[in-house]
This record gives sequence, structure tokens and C-alpha cells, in this order.
Amino acid sequence: MMKPINWMRVAGLALGLAAGSMAHAYDGLVEKKVFTIPSFTTVGGKTIRNVRIGYETYGTLNAAGNNAIFVAHYFSGNSHAAGKYKASDAAPGYWDSVIGAGKPFDTDRYFVVSADSLVNLSTKDPNVVTTGPATIDPDTGRPYGMRFPIVTIKDFVVTQKALADALGIKKFVAVTGASMGSLQAMEWASSYPDMVERVIPVIPGGLEANPYLIAVADEWAMPIYDDPKWNGGDYYGRDEPLHGVAEALKLVTISSRAPGWSQRTFGREFAVAGADPVASWDYKYKVSDALDKAGAARAGFADADSFLYLVRANQTFRIGQGATLEEGVARIKAKVLAIPASSDRLLFPEYTTTMLDDLKKHGVVTELFTIPGDGGHLDGVTDIAKAGDAIRAFLAK
Amino acid sequence: MMKPINWMRVAGLALGLAAGSMAHAYDGLVEKKVFTIPSFTTVGGKTIRNVRIGYETYGTLNAAGNNAIFVAHYFSGNSHAAGKYKASDAAPGYWDSVIGAGKPFDTDRYFVVSADSLVNLSTKDPNVVTTGPATIDPDTGRPYGMRFPIVTIKDFVVTQKALADALGIKKFVAVTGASMGSLQAMEWASSYPDMVERVIPVIPGGLEANPYLIAVADEWAMPIYDDPKWNGGDYYGRDEPLHGVAEALKLVTISSRAPGWSQRTFGREFAVAGADPVASWDYKYKVSDALDKAGAARAGFADADSFLYLVRANQTFRIGQGATLEEGVARIKAKVLAIPASSDRLLFPEYTTTMLDDLKKHGVVTELFTIPGDGGHLDGVTDIAKAGDAIRAFLAK
Repeated sequence: MMKPINWMRVAGLALGLAAGSMAHAYDGLVEKKVFTIPSFTTVGGKTIRNVRIGYETYGTLNAAGNNAIFVAHYFSGNSHAAGKYKASDAAPGYWDSVIGAGKPFDTDRYFVVSADSLVNLSTKDPNVVTTGPATIDPDTGRPYGMRFPIVTIKDFVVTQKALADALGIKKFVAVTGASMGSLQAMEWASSYPDMVERVIPVIPGGLEANPYLIAVADEWAMPIYDDPKWNGGDYYGRDEPLHGVAEALKLVTISSRAPGWSQRTFGREFAVAGADPVASWDYKYKVSDALDKAGAARAGFADADSFLYLVRANQTFRIGQGATLEEGVARIKAKVLAIPASSDRLLFPEYTTTMLDDLKKHGVVTELFTIPGDGGHLDGVTDIAKAGDAIRAFLAK
Repeated sequence: MMKPINWMRVAGLALGLAAGSMAHAYDGLVEKKVFTIPSFTTVGGKTIRNVRIGYETYGTLNAAGNNAIFVAHYFSGNSHAAGKYKASDAAPGYWDSVIGAGKPFDTDRYFVVSADSLVNLSTKDPNVVTTGPATIDPDTGRPYGMRFPIVTIKDFVVTQKALADALGIKKFVAVTGASMGSLQAMEWASSYPDMVERVIPVIPGGLEANPYLIAVADEWAMPIYDDPKWNGGDYYGRDEPLHGVAEALKLVTISSRAPGWSQRTFGREFAVAGADPVASWDYKYKVSDALDKAGAARAGFADADSFLYLVRANQTFRIGQGATLEEGVARIKAKVLAIPASSDRLLFPEYTTTMLDDLKKHGVVTELFTIPGDGGHLDGVTDIAKAGDAIRAFLAK
């Protein structure tokens, strides 16, 4: 196993993220495993051969196969949800504060599984295994580029179902995930209602992408389309559109944060002491400088085309992926605990309110716990421990 | 007077804005006038010769010169706050619903003045008169480009003070403005405390730019910097960076709107019926298509460098433009009525809360009226009539 890239750490170095929520490591060492689907047919009817996805597991599946929990990851994340690959890793997986022995997702009781999504962003992270536009198309021997089929959140879930079957999982105690992970969690409950007892969508995106989110995601994608090096998606083996990807990831970071965090972390400090942006175009504020650097640092591990596929998957999300929202919602049998973040400026708490209203109309039993804080959307990743008791109680019901 | 460009109409055509708030025209016809400052020294100590700014007035100044109201405009706006240039104009000025005979800013009683800002965005609108990077530098005979001095919100206000003096105004009953106009209004109260009785900041940006706003404004500017045609700001007389400007204005529009408006106006409709974005990269959602078109339509009237100067002016805003916030706030003598919009996703209502807390600490008498709605930031422009009674009552105090 190669040296892992810890995204929270990359972002944290530049952005001064508190490391408090990462203090407790998963007890055992974890490893990335690989699952292969020889032939996968997308919801849209396209066939992809040799789909490979990485996954991690924490804990042990019981004989009945009914003590599993699935954790779907967020937009720029991957399946490293908990633990360390090596004891010397700087930080454990992103939700380690709630996954482990004695923790809310208790690995002494549950078998926790997470998987890298299709079209995962971080194709250059050696610990990510995914299939997407950067993958070699077996028919041509070259990367797919934008010829890769458009995939949906439901496609992500179908691959996860194949993995669950292969692992012998019969029932999920819960399916959970933050942000884009919350969409997958809700889709699980609709696609496989008899297999999912509970859903815990964190910083939820609702039951379909709000048109405002569609517009914001367009913003994110724009610098990639506008980078001449993007070249219609055919840049593999050449000078890649790193600037566009860096700007795109900067936009993601801004969307994922909030005024309180910005004020607390940077205030109105200048990037260089004494260099007031009023005086020269060469001067900037510390917040601008830090976000530039964080975007650039992450761009080196990311794939431009995969970013565009992820944007499209989020924009096209509607639970069930059918002609109406209702038919997707009506299939749900699971109980739902929604966990928005109070200061979320991307997937606003009002998206959760709308979702819960729609679920209740269809007779779904719902609960709500709001993560307090001023960190914005990312509080659902960094501060998930604040919801630990709510998760514990919900799993006991 | 040439045919006026009504920005609300340009945006409205593409974005389906309700025209309700524009139904009542200012009673008389108005005209754009021009005020000239032969030599203007910026707060930063740079001298600009022959500063020309356009302005409009509604109503009549009384003999004592103490019945004036100043209206500062928003980022992409100009001094056409009320009335029509010609009876056949499609729509009146943007705040016509509250400026006019018998309206809250009652032109039977008050002399209402508005002025085009320095570095105004819409240099190609024949009804905008401004001085900025697109202006010919008398020293070189060529447009300044990025050699124009960096200017601040306080500089805007200093030009407005010179105009007020020239008009014979001794005292303002109120200084008001939406968004960037709110910054100017607050600056007026700090720079000229004995001249300002009341301030009415609408969709307020607070007393200094929050670092989160600094980051969001960086986002807006990015597509211009990244457009190869921008060429370091020297594009005058050549092929201009229209794509960058269009993308920048699209970002401004998204920031100025909100989920409720997006849902109500577009829902998840496709740009072309039956053309589902799941099926092809050629297909998009109606919201994306409308925002693309609105950005492109506005880009033809806007100047790229001026956009960058406006971004910088907003980012560097601190009331008083001094070393500390306190010294700027401490000078204020005016009463303040703050009017945020409940669904504002750009200048969040929490910026108003922070501002009012800071003002109260310094003994300023404050009031708050929140515009209800789901339209986002732009509700402060389109739905100002909802605050009409609050404004009327405040002016009577």
C-alpha cells in the first residue's frame, strides 16, 4: 500500500482546520481492497466493462449478514472513512471520530463498509480505485475522456449493491454518507428498500438536486471548461488543465465554508503583513491566498473530466432517477435521521426541511439533528462527532 | 438622450423576474446629468484629473438645502433609481416603487439624488457616466486599464460629497442604497457625520467586508483574469474578454439569487423539452441555460477591468477605511434602519446582525426590518416596496 494522501490534511495545512475531530484513530489498520464488476450496465443503458472500485471495511460481518453499515463518500472524498493504513499516517479517515470500537458506528457490533464511487475525483491518489473518464477504454486502449457514459448517483449505488452482495451482506442496519454521500444513502433506501433499515443523510442534498444547486455546480465546472488545456476532455498524456481544476476546487472549498469560519480563521489579515490590497494589485488578503493554495495543492491529485462527471451526477440526482420524485420516494421503507449543519451555505438546511416534509407525506418516519457551528457545509465532515449521540440513539431504535 | 438600457429588464427577459414591483413609474421624466471634478485625490493619495460622474435627481431641493436623500447604487447598477427617460421606456429606474410623489422617498417632500459610481461597470451603457479604467488617461491619450488607481467605497462617497456640495445640499434626511450602495450609505455616515441624519442600508454588507465575501468576490473576478483576451487589462480597441465578463456576471446573478427563487422560476425543467441532461453533454437544465443567456446579454454593456475594480472596492471596504473598524464606527451620529432580505445568500442576514451589534456598542440608535421572500439578495432591489412602510416611519422619526 502506497503512502496515503489525506485530503483533510492537505486542506488543513493550508486552511488551518482544527484537528480536534481527528484525534482518535480507528483501532486496527485498514487496507484498500478492490472489487471488480466484469460488465456494468448504467441506468442510461450503457455498458462499461471491467468496472473496478476500491473499498474499505471496518469490523466483522455476522453470520446472518445483517449487521452492516454502508458509508457513501462526498464529492471530493473516497472510501477512507476511518482508521489508518499505517500507524505512522498523519491522520485517520475522515469520519474516524464516529467509526470504531465503542464509537457510534461501533465496529465491535457493526460491519462498516465504504466504497470509492464511479468517476471518483482523485484518480491520482494511489489509494483511490475508480472507473471513469481517466480509465483506459478496453475498446480503444486510450482513456475514455468525455466518451465515458454519463453516470448517476443511482449508478453509484448499483455498484455498491453488487459489492454488498459479493461481501454476503443481507441487510444494512444503516446507510449513511455526507453531502453527495447523503444522496447515495437516500438512493439506497429507494432502490433497495428491503435491504435498508435506516438512512442517515448528513448535510443532506434532499431528494433531488435543487435548481440552485445545479447553478452552483455549473460555477464549479466552469473553470475546467474554460481552461484551454482541457481540450474537450482529451488531455491525457499531455499538459493537463491543472489551473482549471485548481480554480474548480477553490470554488468547492468556498461553497463548503461559511462566514463565521472565514472570520475566525482569517479575519481581514493580509497575505503578507503590511501589504494592503488597497495599495496594489499584487497584494491580497490571507483568505484569498489560502484558498488559492489549497485549490492548487488538491489539483495535483484530481482529474478534470472526473470533476465534470461528478458535477453532472449531482445535478441530475433525483431519488429513484425516475420521471417523478414521488415514485422514488414512495419506495422507501427505512427510518430516516437527517443531520444538516446549521451554517451550511451549500446544501442549505432548508433543503433538509423540504426533504423531511416530502418524506413525511409518504409516511416515512423521520428524525432531525442539526450540527451546530459556523464552519459551513464541511461541519458535516469535520464535526460529525457532535451528532454522535443522535446517531447512537437512532441505531438503537 | 440615447435609448436607455434597463438592467432589470435585460435580466428579467432571461430570468423571468416578476415585473410587479416595476409597475408604477416616477411621475416626471428624468434625465442623466454630468458632474465634473477637475482634480480628485483618492484616499490612497493618487490624483485623477477630470473625474466625470453621471447623476439623476427627483424632486426639488428646499431653500435650506436640508431635504435631500442620497441613493447609492449596487454593484452592477447605476444612478437610474427612479422614473423614465422617456414615456415609452419599458420600465422605470430600479427603486421606482419607493421613490416618487407620495411614495416612501416622497419627491413632493424630498430632493432625491443618485450618482453613478467611480469605476462603474456599465461603461457601454450610454446612460452611465463614470470614470475608471476604461476612461482615457489624459496623460497618455489611451485608456487607463489596470493603471487606474485602486479606489475604495470611501472614494465613491467623496465624489458624491463633492456633488452634494455643488448642488447646495447642506443635510441629508437619509442616505440609502442596496448592497454595495449600503456600504456607501454607511460610509457617508462615518465620513460626514454632521451631514447625515439617517442611514438606510438595504441588503447590508456590514461595516467591513467579511473574509467570506472577499472569497466570493474572488470567484466572480476569476473568469475575467482567466480569459486570455483580458491581456493584463489591456484589451481596449481589441477583441474584448466578453466570455470572462459573461461568466463573471453569471456568478453575480447566482450569488444574488436563492433556492426558492430557482425552484419557483425553473424547477428541474430541461432547457429543451425532452433533452434530459442524463442523456448527453449537449443537454442542460433550463436554469443553466437562462443564467448563461443572462450573463451573455449583460456582458455586452460591461467593462472587464471595471468589474475588477469594483470587486476590489468591495473587498477592501471597512467603514472609515482606517486601521481599525472602531474609529470608523465611532464617528457615526445618524440613526440606522437596516433592511436585510430574509433569503439573502450573498450578504447573509447574519452580516446585518453583526453590524447592528457593533453599531449599538457605539451608541448608535438602530432599527431592523427584514424583507420577507425567497428571491435572495436581489429581493432588496426588486421587492424594496415591502419595506415601504418601515422606511416611511423611520423618515418620520
